[in-house]
Amino acid sequence: MSIKPIVYKDGILLMIDQRLLPVQETWLEYTDYQGVAEAIRTMVVRGAPAIGVAAAYGAAFGARDIAAVDIEAFYPPFEKVCDVLAATRPTAVNLFWALDRMKACARRHKGKTLSELKQILLAEAHEIAREDEQINRTMGAYGEPLIPAGARILTHCNAGALATGGYGTALGVVRAAHEAGKVAMVYADETRPFLQGSRLTAWELHKDGVPVTLICDNMAGYLMSQGEIDCVIVGADRIAANGDTANKIGTYSVAVLAREHGLPFYVAAPLSTIDLETPDGSQIPIEERDRREVTHVGDRQLAPEGIGVRNPAFDVTPSRLVSAIITEKGVVTAPYEPGLKQVKKEG
Amino acid sequence: MSIKPIVYKDGILLMIDQRLLPVQETWLEYTDYQGVAEAIRTMVVRGAPAIGVAAAYGAAFGARDIAAVDIEAFYPPFEKVCDVLAATRPTAVNLFWALDRMKACARRHKGKTLSELKQILLAEAHEIAREDEQINRTMGAYGEPLIPAGARILTHCNAGALATGGYGTALGVVRAAHEAGKVAMVYADETRPFLQGSRLTAWELHKDGVPVTLICDNMAGYLMSQGEIDCVIVGADRIAANGDTANKIGTYSVAVLAREHGLPFYVAAPLSTIDLETPDGSQIPIEERDRREVTHVGDRQLAPEGIGVRNPAFDVTPSRLVSAIITEKGVVTAPYEPGLKQVKKEG
Repeated sequence: MSIKPIVYKDGILLMIDQRLLPVQETWLEYTDYQGVAEAIRTMVVRGAPAIGVAAAYGAAFGARDIAAVDIEAFYPPFEKVCDVLAATRPTAVNLFWALDRMKACARRHKGKTLSELKQILLAEAHEIAREDEQINRTMGAYGEPLIPAGARILTHCNAGALATGGYGTALGVVRAAHEAGKVAMVYADETRPFLQGSRLTAWELHKDGVPVTLICDNMAGYLMSQGEIDCVIVGADRIAANGDTANKIGTYSVAVLAREHGLPFYVAAPLSTIDLETPDGSQIPIEERDRREVTHVGDRQLAPEGIGVRNPAFDVTPSRLVSAIITEKGVVTAPYEPGLKQVKKEG
Repeated sequence: MSIKPIVYKDGILLMIDQRLLPVQETWLEYTDYQGVAEAIRTMVVRGAPAIGVAAAYGAAFGARDIAAVDIEAFYPPFEKVCDVLAATRPTAVNLFWALDRMKACARRHKGKTLSELKQILLAEAHEIAREDEQINRTMGAYGEPLIPAGARILTHCNAGALATGGYGTALGVVRAAHEAGKVAMVYADETRPFLQGSRLTAWELHKDGVPVTLICDNMAGYLMSQGEIDCVIVGADRIAANGDTANKIGTYSVAVLAREHGLPFYVAAPLSTIDLETPDGSQIPIEERDRREVTHVGDRQLAPEGIGVRNPAFDVTPSRLVSAIITEKGVVTAPYEPGLKQVKKEG
């Protein structure tokens, strides 16, 4: 049973503080949408699907606290709640997908009483969370046959239980392959600057008994050149209509290295990550985060004052470097444009 | 005037503790060869040419303290001193080159008195240090024409003044290009796990007024894909006869990315780094260092207990990915085997 990073209980949203892992397991409590928005912005919760789930609960909390006199007066402040949640992070499309779904749900139930509508929106958030874990298990089943027996799998960042409603996207496929007895080793890139690989991926796989070895991001090419990696699997924050994939910074470099060594490079992501409105990767906004994430680890200063710093949080892997995209409606391969359209239609 | 990391004064070797930079500038004092060996092993001093210089002084200290009754009795304990120094680190060939040079010097002066020989060995260490800085300035002059005006240069690890007797190898070329007004920006890979890029390269370039921007190792590919890098220049720890180049872990990945984006990838290294005895990169021993360098930054734990960790300190870039090797006898391009033989002969 893999960890669930987001748990709703009696009007409170509990989220494990992912900034403190693996040293401390601290659960933070959220009771309003502003708190949830701040948790997304500051990366208490991260990972595209998990951000979607958290935002859905944030929208439900916001709805609950709207003191409207009638149902018509409810919609404008609810839009504002969703706008605040949408402004937290720009790249992961699941955030916008979840909020659009909450807004559509609200519109669909115009005929209800205000109190009924608030209940329905909370139920919708529960449904988004429940579906997300189910989707990951389905993706795991679709992806597992792609993994060879005795596989030594490289992954980047954390596309695991902690990044989702549970089980994980890329790590969901890894878990399914492990359950099938096929995983010899998972190599986890540490994933600077936020260290999702060392802090989160290594932690959740080790906890579940999956063999895991930590490496620095710059060691992946060396291991590939030594024949120590069989395939790569990562998650995604947004997949454009042509299959170009935005994911954690460094994913693109891993994809180039995989191609150089003739290794398959897989992306596992739910349909909610596929954004047909974005034609290609050049249109995906790339978040630049604070320089301090690069210059410090905790309070410890790693770099001199006064220098320039870049901190793009994501990069785009062109679809030509992607061997397959694993979704809950099956595995899509090139040409991606019609394939992605097809699975979205089925979803 | 760039910093010199190794300074001899009145029988004492002063070395800046590179583990404490950029936060503290602490100079440690060494008075015997065992101390110098420990400083190399624990990376108080690092960088292939600087290791060579430090080892030469270590050998001179060892020689000075040998209580032999005559010159014949001197050689066996001197061999032992050199063996201890040689056992500190396996990859950088400059270490063995410097010790071989000290041993050859000792043999060449068999006819001297013991006291004269000890003086001669100290003078030889001074000469190695002095030559090293001079060589770097010559390399800078040879390499500077390769750098385009307005260059945005990527470098990995620290092949700077701190890695040498002064001025630097790769950063020597950068300094020469900066003196020629050609450097728009140096992008420094932070270089996990030891962070030579953020701690040392950013520090010494900023100190010298060279514009520098720090990035995480996994951001280099993204910047290249955005057209923000014009060329790459790195140092080397050992260059095999066929041009295969061992350098800090991650160099190989940068070279693959440079090729993918059509960017020149330059190596700057003195002749003492070229090892014609090693036919190709597969024969270069790769040091694996302690797991704690990856799992911790200072006392701060970044990864859970009980997982596997890999920590190769170097990788090998095949010569087909190297655009040119800059030496103090000129710029060598493919085919490397005859070119490297030629410059070694001239050296």
